[in-house]
Amino acid sequence: MAAGRTIAVLGGTGDQGYGLALRWAKAGERVIIGSRVAERAEDAARKIREELGGQGEVEGRENPAAVAGADIVVVSVPFSAQATTLKTCKDSFREGQILCDLTVALASNIGGPATRMIVPPHGSAAEQAADLAPKGVKVVSAFQNVSAEALSSLDEEIDCDVIVCGTNDAKPVIRELIAHLPGARYVDGGPLYNSRIVESITALLIGFNIRYKGIHSGIRISGIPAN
Amino acid sequence: MAAGRTIAVLGGTGDQGYGLALRWAKAGERVIIGSRVAERAEDAARKIREELGGQGEVEGRENPAAVAGADIVVVSVPFSAQATTLKTCKDSFREGQILCDLTVALASNIGGPATRMIVPPHGSAAEQAADLAPKGVKVVSAFQNVSAEALSSLDEEIDCDVIVCGTNDAKPVIRELIAHLPGARYVDGGPLYNSRIVESITALLIGFNIRYKGIHSGIRISGIPAN
Repeated sequence: MAAGRTIAVLGGTGDQGYGLALRWAKAGERVIIGSRVAERAEDAARKIREELGGQGEVEGRENPAAVAGADIVVVSVPFSAQATTLKTCKDSFREGQILCDLTVALASNIGGPATRMIVPPHGSAAEQAADLAPKGVKVVSAFQNVSAEALSSLDEEIDCDVIVCGTNDAKPVIRELIAHLPGARYVDGGPLYNSRIVESITALLIGFNIRYKGIHSGIRISGIPAN
Repeated sequence: MAAGRTIAVLGGTGDQGYGLALRWAKAGERVIIGSRVAERAEDAARKIREELGGQGEVEGRENPAAVAGADIVVVSVPFSAQATTLKTCKDSFREGQILCDLTVALASNIGGPATRMIVPPHGSAAEQAADLAPKGVKVVSAFQNVSAEALSSLDEEIDCDVIVCGTNDAKPVIRELIAHLPGARYVDGGPLYNSRIVESITALLIGFNIRYKGIHSGIRISGIPAN
């Protein structure tokens, strides 16, 4: 299933990045956890291998080394760290790589509630990623609405559509990664510009999780034919 | 079913307002179609009575007279007409009425695409409605994501959740109106502030309808227990 490719998950020590790395490693993808500190990345990689009973091709590296070793770079860091992370990795990217951004500018990044958004200078976190990514890197956004808790529980279905915005010829690859998440479904979200709406849905879902105590809410788009 | 109450639908001559008025009249609610021009409102009311085979308590009035005769005022006008409509009706509102705003600030209001949003001065159209509504009127927002085409086809199920934001003690009434739309489900969207996210989802859905040709997309929130 790995198709010879490697996925770097920057911020793979955090809840959502960890959950995705876990799911993808379980599905047979080769994964590199990226972190600012190599030891923390290695710890997370070890934990994934343990959860998978010793299976799983997962290693941990500092972010720039993770980017250098990957075909697909998944950015799953707090919005407040996104620009710095991408700048740090600037020289490690190469043409043709896919950058899949998961960042959401929740107001919790500035000490506010996670149920509200701040407006990024580019309109969306994904557009900021596109501005900071070196030329020739194919930028998409996806997975922002997927519950970290659901991802981390390997026996839980992912009851959520994944709306993918951005570079069209990267979408089939992201679609393959979505297919590794049982229950999740790929939906074409159009241009990267639309990510500003998809990102804000995350804040809305966090509000549902609070109001409807203890749930892991997700989003489904109705009316789209089965694919 | 009508519980002695009357629903005014301002902009009930437009696609979405018409569809809601049709569904509610069919369910036995007393409905007043509101329009800038009384004759156009009367025409729409006549058309609904015809569609319902002569049944349905529906009449047409100028907007201010529609507001004066109603317990629930549904505002379904283009964003570019919302402020003027509410100002025109200012003296007709009374304390305790419910104002349910459906307005979405699509960029089509300023000659742009309906797949993109403009940012209203208050952050959302619903918050603008709240600012313009007389004191004592209970403001909520709802129904923005429901397909007008689906509403107008009486044999079609409404495959969409209705996220209701705003005044809590108005929500049970809106929930009753949602129950008249087969397939639709009430979801508590929290404070009116959240309407900015719910409204923007409309632009996203319009994009899906274009990319996935000919569908009437809607939104479902997964993980919320049946209610």
